[in-house]
Amino acid sequence: MPKGDSTPLSAPPELGDMSADDFRRHGHALVEWIARYLDHTDRYPVLARVAPGDIAKNLPAQAPETGEPFEAILEDVDRVLMPGVTHWSHPGFMAYFGISASAPGVFADFLASALNQQAMLWRTSPVSTELEEVTLRWLADLIGLPPSFEGVIYDTASVSTLHALATAREAAVPGVRAHGLPGRGDVPRLRVYCSDQTHSSIDKGVMLLGLGHDALRKIPTDDRFRMRPDLLRTAIAEDRVSGWRPIAVVATIGTTSTTSVDPVAEIADICEAERLWLHVDGAYGGVCGMLPEMRGHFVGLERADSFVVNPHKWLFTPFDLSAFYCRRMDELRQAFSLTPEYLRTPDGARNLSDTGVQLGRRFRSLKLWMILRYFGADGVRARLREHIRLAKAFADWVDAHPDLERLAPVPFSVVCFRANLRGRSMSPADLDAFNEALMHRINASGDVFLSHTKLRGAFAIRVAIGNLRTGEAQLRRVQELVSLGVGTNNEKRPPETTNLSSSLAHRGPGQTDM
Amino acid sequence: MPKGDSTPLSAPPELGDMSADDFRRHGHALVEWIARYLDHTDRYPVLARVAPGDIAKNLPAQAPETGEPFEAILEDVDRVLMPGVTHWSHPGFMAYFGISASAPGVFADFLASALNQQAMLWRTSPVSTELEEVTLRWLADLIGLPPSFEGVIYDTASVSTLHALATAREAAVPGVRAHGLPGRGDVPRLRVYCSDQTHSSIDKGVMLLGLGHDALRKIPTDDRFRMRPDLLRTAIAEDRVSGWRPIAVVATIGTTSTTSVDPVAEIADICEAERLWLHVDGAYGGVCGMLPEMRGHFVGLERADSFVVNPHKWLFTPFDLSAFYCRRMDELRQAFSLTPEYLRTPDGARNLSDTGVQLGRRFRSLKLWMILRYFGADGVRARLREHIRLAKAFADWVDAHPDLERLAPVPFSVVCFRANLRGRSMSPADLDAFNEALMHRINASGDVFLSHTKLRGAFAIRVAIGNLRTGEAQLRRVQELVSLGVGTNNEKRPPETTNLSSSLAHRGPGQTDM
Repeated sequence: MPKGDSTPLSAPPELGDMSADDFRRHGHALVEWIARYLDHTDRYPVLARVAPGDIAKNLPAQAPETGEPFEAILEDVDRVLMPGVTHWSHPGFMAYFGISASAPGVFADFLASALNQQAMLWRTSPVSTELEEVTLRWLADLIGLPPSFEGVIYDTASVSTLHALATAREAAVPGVRAHGLPGRGDVPRLRVYCSDQTHSSIDKGVMLLGLGHDALRKIPTDDRFRMRPDLLRTAIAEDRVSGWRPIAVVATIGTTSTTSVDPVAEIADICEAERLWLHVDGAYGGVCGMLPEMRGHFVGLERADSFVVNPHKWLFTPFDLSAFYCRRMDELRQAFSLTPEYLRTPDGARNLSDTGVQLGRRFRSLKLWMILRYFGADGVRARLREHIRLAKAFADWVDAHPDLERLAPVPFSVVCFRANLRGRSMSPADLDAFNEALMHRINASGDVFLSHTKLRGAFAIRVAIGNLRTGEAQLRRVQELVSLGVGTNNEKRPPETTNLSSSLAHRGPGQTDM
Repeated sequence: MPKGDSTPLSAPPELGDMSADDFRRHGHALVEWIARYLDHTDRYPVLARVAPGDIAKNLPAQAPETGEPFEAILEDVDRVLMPGVTHWSHPGFMAYFGISASAPGVFADFLASALNQQAMLWRTSPVSTELEEVTLRWLADLIGLPPSFEGVIYDTASVSTLHALATAREAAVPGVRAHGLPGRGDVPRLRVYCSDQTHSSIDKGVMLLGLGHDALRKIPTDDRFRMRPDLLRTAIAEDRVSGWRPIAVVATIGTTSTTSVDPVAEIADICEAERLWLHVDGAYGGVCGMLPEMRGHFVGLERADSFVVNPHKWLFTPFDLSAFYCRRMDELRQAFSLTPEYLRTPDGARNLSDTGVQLGRRFRSLKLWMILRYFGADGVRARLREHIRLAKAFADWVDAHPDLERLAPVPFSVVCFRANLRGRSMSPADLDAFNEALMHRINASGDVFLSHTKLRGAFAIRVAIGNLRTGEAQLRRVQELVSLGVGTNNEKRPPETTNLSSSLAHRGPGQTDM
């Protein structure tokens, strides 16, 4: 390949990468493959129809000794891998949280991998370092976080929360970075508080940090699954008397099971009075700060010490991208920064690897930038509102259905319900078994995929709306499958369908209450 | 878009994702863009020529309210973002470690983002869960790790090492998961050992785990920068007498500064005798286990408790993918597994989120699979050998140059050296300043990018070879720039060039000794 004088020859082709011609050929084929896939994810059953081991047994036990044509590899994607895919991009995916790998996000990941930026230092990727700062500021402004919050991108909310708790530990126990926790007479047992609905990543965080699972005290919730501030206050007082040292509270805006919203403002009052770190987990619900009509859920957030929201959950971002915000980021850096000689640079710039445990950092901000530009703030809001509207409509249908029972309020886009048949008295265990079987029957259709939780001990089916492809048709299909499962045959179905349609008439998100 | 009866309509277009037609159009344009980029990364200066803030100031302060055409976004990539890219894919990138985003890896990331697999549970992505198991077994076999090692993929070596140390802590302090470290009379101060050349991620790990930085004792190295087992043994004995409890040793195969190799077998003897966890950090050097002639560096690895190797370093994998192997993975799971109700599944399969702190898991194994298949084991070996050959040739040239001094052995593909001019006596500080200025002058060329370290207090320039595009021409360019910098003018250069050429004649990797 001839090049100009100033461009030295690189590695010989047989020891280099794929040629540019081959890259074009395979790249274009892959674009066609992905376009077909994304356009027709509904050709596949949502939930993979394989048993554990089915994929592995179709793969060779050893890597090939000789390289293979890329065409052969792509053929095996179809033949060997695709049967093992659970289709998170399927319009009927309504399990866990509905998430979306939107096209601009997928393109951004493609480009980020090609650029292979590693933003451990500013100089190793000025663009990734600065685009991270800019896009996180964009997101903060959209959500309503004041400028006192500085942002950084991690991979997952588990890691974001871990950094929040680590900094809370550092703030509470001066010198813990240097001297640690064991063998010190001056460090009492530390306590972290969250509700009984809080995500399990908090549990993992306190375990990893050496606080121990005992350090996490779970505060009971009210009938809407919100942390009870009165019981939080009592717990802190009790603990202080018993020799624990309270250090942090985790409140959630949009819990995993029901998307309930803890009373952040009241919890912030307590944290201020007690001088505790307040971390707010908005991994799922946080993006709704973009909707003025939802801001009520966010009152008090501006007083938090740290906050996490995951664009890979409900901001149409391919997995993974967790946005962490902190009002005390200098303390976080004090807890983590270390600069060995080989990482010293003369530019005086802020290096992102000082803001956490991970030295290496993929160019994740590129996807947040492309997504916010492609959809625009207004486009994002419209999509969030549509998901909330669909959830509200589905909740109304559940409420109107004589054989169904809604088990939680619907502040965002997740509906928890169960079948509870008229005139049939079942034991709690039988009712759970009936609903579990119902969910599996629905999932076996291949058209939709729902997950479950337990609420006050009862098995609850969850319908989580958040995928860009999900629309009314998928919810009608859930209604059909649920109706079939509770014995409402098709002839008797009109009222339900009407309910969905009628509730679709009064637009606007609003919160569906119990 | 008409669909069959069984495929329900999804979201209305104005509330959905990019249309399939647009996806094709923009996707094909992006393939062309990336193909051009990867074919001519050398059009750009390797190291971005911007000052801190230069990229951010060209970006708007707010996200756009209305969505923009994807073409406009891609134009801004060229106009606004590219000036801030430091080109890790440039053939002249020889700083830190030479890494490569190979084409099959870039394609795999593109596909992984489109499939948006989230492998927290087997059922949420059977393919990601099982392909991870299979490809990690492939890699283990290639490297020579026995089947007693089970693998899991994390994002970075920092996180891999953190899990190793967390499990070592759990093994040493029964109940630490539940009861933590503070306020316990039964937990003495814990000690972890590594060499003075070990990566800073070990420091961050002990800090995060609550052991404190004091808990890390750095063992001096010998004249080849290898941990001295005799001093390790002494340190452990001293610590036991002083009331510390030794729990783990971190040995490195390929340290960051010089790629030195700790004597793993001797360290394993000590760990067995003292009942300490042995973690081996092969983040960079680990892939060389694939070369029979390099297996000498890996003797004793089979007795380690855990091992990390990063395909994103020297296995042509776009950032990020760290492969963690453990002989006691059940203990790691015991330290971390937690299954809240909403994650319970009926399939009885092993769920990867039990193997660590991160619940969400991107489909990273896809790139390892595509890379191993596309290049084949033999193709990978040939490329590793070529990089080692180039490094050896460059080291020979340094050794033959009267004004240069090599500062470390070259077991792999990194050469550390400095200028030390004949007949000019400089103070250590002046010598450091001269070499630092030399490095910056070389980097200012835009043709190559070198980084530095300090060795026994002396400033050392590092040439790290590992990018698939790097070839002889780039090393000749380094030679030219170094020669210019030390005052060897072009007319006097032939001997050096001859040295590179002649050492290229005797093929085969081998180790260049001091």
